[in-house]
Amino acid sequence: MTAENETERSGFSRRAALGGAVAGAAGIAAGGVAGASGSVGVAARKRKTDVVVVGAGLAGLSAARAIEKAGRTVVVLEARDRVGGRTLNEKIGKGEVVEIGGQWVGPGQTHVLDLIDQLGLETFDTYVDGKSIYYRDGTLTEYEGIIPPVSGPVLIEILNVLGDMNAKAAAVPVEAPWTAPQAVEWDSVTLAGYLDDFGLSPEARDVIDLAITSVFAVEPRDTSLLFLALYTAMAGADFNNLINTTDGAQEKRIVGGSQRISLELAKRLGGAVKLSRPVKSIGTSGGRVAVRAGDDTWSAKRVIVTVPPALIGGIRFNPPLPASKAQLDQRFPMGTVIKCMAVYDSPFWRDDGLNGMTTSDTGPVKLTYDNSPPDGDPGVLLGFIEGQDARELLEASEAERKAAVVECFVRYFGSKAESAMTGYVEKSWAADPWSRGCYGGVMPPGAIVGYPGAVRRPAGHIHWAGTETATEWGGYMDGAIQSGQRAAAEVLAKL
Amino acid sequence: MTAENETERSGFSRRAALGGAVAGAAGIAAGGVAGASGSVGVAARKRKTDVVVVGAGLAGLSAARAIEKAGRTVVVLEARDRVGGRTLNEKIGKGEVVEIGGQWVGPGQTHVLDLIDQLGLETFDTYVDGKSIYYRDGTLTEYEGIIPPVSGPVLIEILNVLGDMNAKAAAVPVEAPWTAPQAVEWDSVTLAGYLDDFGLSPEARDVIDLAITSVFAVEPRDTSLLFLALYTAMAGADFNNLINTTDGAQEKRIVGGSQRISLELAKRLGGAVKLSRPVKSIGTSGGRVAVRAGDDTWSAKRVIVTVPPALIGGIRFNPPLPASKAQLDQRFPMGTVIKCMAVYDSPFWRDDGLNGMTTSDTGPVKLTYDNSPPDGDPGVLLGFIEGQDARELLEASEAERKAAVVECFVRYFGSKAESAMTGYVEKSWAADPWSRGCYGGVMPPGAIVGYPGAVRRPAGHIHWAGTETATEWGGYMDGAIQSGQRAAAEVLAKL
Repeated sequence: MTAENETERSGFSRRAALGGAVAGAAGIAAGGVAGASGSVGVAARKRKTDVVVVGAGLAGLSAARAIEKAGRTVVVLEARDRVGGRTLNEKIGKGEVVEIGGQWVGPGQTHVLDLIDQLGLETFDTYVDGKSIYYRDGTLTEYEGIIPPVSGPVLIEILNVLGDMNAKAAAVPVEAPWTAPQAVEWDSVTLAGYLDDFGLSPEARDVIDLAITSVFAVEPRDTSLLFLALYTAMAGADFNNLINTTDGAQEKRIVGGSQRISLELAKRLGGAVKLSRPVKSIGTSGGRVAVRAGDDTWSAKRVIVTVPPALIGGIRFNPPLPASKAQLDQRFPMGTVIKCMAVYDSPFWRDDGLNGMTTSDTGPVKLTYDNSPPDGDPGVLLGFIEGQDARELLEASEAERKAAVVECFVRYFGSKAESAMTGYVEKSWAADPWSRGCYGGVMPPGAIVGYPGAVRRPAGHIHWAGTETATEWGGYMDGAIQSGQRAAAEVLAKL
Repeated sequence: MTAENETERSGFSRRAALGGAVAGAAGIAAGGVAGASGSVGVAARKRKTDVVVVGAGLAGLSAARAIEKAGRTVVVLEARDRVGGRTLNEKIGKGEVVEIGGQWVGPGQTHVLDLIDQLGLETFDTYVDGKSIYYRDGTLTEYEGIIPPVSGPVLIEILNVLGDMNAKAAAVPVEAPWTAPQAVEWDSVTLAGYLDDFGLSPEARDVIDLAITSVFAVEPRDTSLLFLALYTAMAGADFNNLINTTDGAQEKRIVGGSQRISLELAKRLGGAVKLSRPVKSIGTSGGRVAVRAGDDTWSAKRVIVTVPPALIGGIRFNPPLPASKAQLDQRFPMGTVIKCMAVYDSPFWRDDGLNGMTTSDTGPVKLTYDNSPPDGDPGVLLGFIEGQDARELLEASEAERKAAVVECFVRYFGSKAESAMTGYVEKSWAADPWSRGCYGGVMPPGAIVGYPGAVRRPAGHIHWAGTETATEWGGYMDGAIQSGQRAAAEVLAKL
């Protein structure tokens, strides 16, 4: 069931982009903020629906689907000219795609795995056959299995820290982390400060720092022990679940690319999904909510906002948001990652017995994966630039970044990584005005205990979703879906 | 000299507010983002000026005045229906006002002191005659001078910490704090973590925590040692300058209230100051910048944006802001303070030999001042609710907050603080959608070293001001003025 008074029904509607990422803003047209008196200009159209969802990523589309299934009308307003949010397929020729956004799923991620099943999509295993590379102090070591070839004492140090982190995660209630017995203490220390107290060897510290940066796309100094514990708690209270490939969050990939989940959801939602409609304002008046986007004002009973907290300030609310929500949103900055891939006719590293996975102390690419399609045709090497390494390349040109990435790939996989390269794709998510960072929001010290409950507490008829509001696998595709379904349930209970 | 093609010249122009804090947003009218092609609707007006300044607080007005004095045209677009930003006078009867925003000036604050002189305004000393109150563990002690009546050992602990903080401040270059020799180390630890390492007695720790919260309106866990060192460096590298009344940043007040500085500046700028014009978008195209506000689009050679970093995301930029600037702005949240004042026929505490100043371990009001007008008629007690105490009262009603404040005033000054009260005024700055917190932005760990230079680096023809961008007395009125003058100089050098 799509919205009443709907005029566009041809698939999900598209408006021509007007050039530039904020092109949608050019669609501002006559009319007042919803709820305010005043003239509505010639171009304005007013439409009614039960629920408006802001954002057509996994959270928004999952919410919309649940609402539609319950027999209610829904409209999804998306700023971009595409669905998928932080998931995005990119064509690399031969009919294949790679994901330049989120891509992996793993055990325990029941929301996304169930959805994949329901949509008739298929998964395949991340390529792990063969040896991995460990690079440190200029020395490259190949190894088998999942444990890097560090010395026994270093391994014990690492396991000791991971064990402590997991124990802390087990003490954090995912719905209310601020109630953990040591919440204030753990939210008063940065992860760097926490790790300092272990007095680790440089190698153990480097490995753990890299693991943290690979999960959060920030440096250990940027977030708190409590946020780490919460994040780990949401992933089954085992940090290994976050960093592992097999048996972990990087275990499986989706045939055709992860954006297909959103594309399939949008297909089922049909005309309810409106692209190129950046929401400008949300006004509540007389028991209804008016959402202004492009030329249109939508009138709804409830609204679900799925954009990351760091971007909510881009929408004008009338009445203004509660102070606690507005201040929390100032304290949930996005991580920094540039996802870079080189394309080859074939995954030549496999011929050398390598699986394409690297853990390195030398940047800017310190982690690599074999990201080829299921049949290995073409071959794709994936390199992540994360945290401070990414920040230092934010203003570099793509050519400069490409050169830096290729230099890393050559360091790990030999000269063929440069000579045989047939293509290069990358995405710097911090430069994308509708995400302004990836993988997700990462809270600095003090934010969790500072504003208990503010992250999910509805503001009148406005509800919150998005992976930053998840209580399971927050920061992941699974968390986005979980948050959307939770927000839909909240709204349906009120309709 | 005001802008070319100006149509409104009657003083500084006012538009009727349409109700609600985002009322200005109701002025969205036909037209495209500047620089984008597309229709300009019937209501749109296009105007040209050399420089547009966004924000009519002290930074914006100071910038505009410098630009106008240099013979260039300027327009100041202000979202609110008043000037002054985070300074705001409130009438309390008898022809008197109190400030519910920033109010004090002190030695070393040459920018604001010079401006006060130039505008013909006068200052007077904050009332300090008599004894102060120190309240701890349920015991009230009166004392003379500026040193609270703590034991000798506790005083030594406190002085030791202050000395260490000052030494660190002396090592931080205010223009480039990320280059301090230990910048990464100091930006990796929260202030709470830093203080933990001193192993302080509970009393020493409480006094220092309160001092920090009184300066930043956040908890010690919320910011980094490097930010503290930078902030102190900007104030003469002596933390006492920040916390002292006499000889410090709370030394003097402005006759008629601090907002008079902005009101006087605006009077001199005349029609160049446009109120109730929240800026929606800033687009750069063909070497000019188009600023969209309300019904109008202003075309300028350069733009100075003075809104706090945490609120810059509320403006749509085309092209989008550089990634480093956008991500830094996610990492500069505003402090939390509720400024509360009770009014009495006279300052009765003076009759008891008290100066109205309190330092307490018991909230929500832990700091008080005598905030009466120069002649002490009427009497005004000022109480600050800051940091976590303020966060916990953000969603309380004014009546609830008033009751809590009065309870504190009675605790310190006796039952007369309740029985003789004739008025009550307060301002919760986090609830104000155009400030979303006070006193200023406070960076969490990692932010300073994460984005070197991003805070002030112009984005094309767009320049940045506001006290968060200051290099002297950042966070203070003085810093706002310094930042505005600096941004004006940047722009004038390019015109």
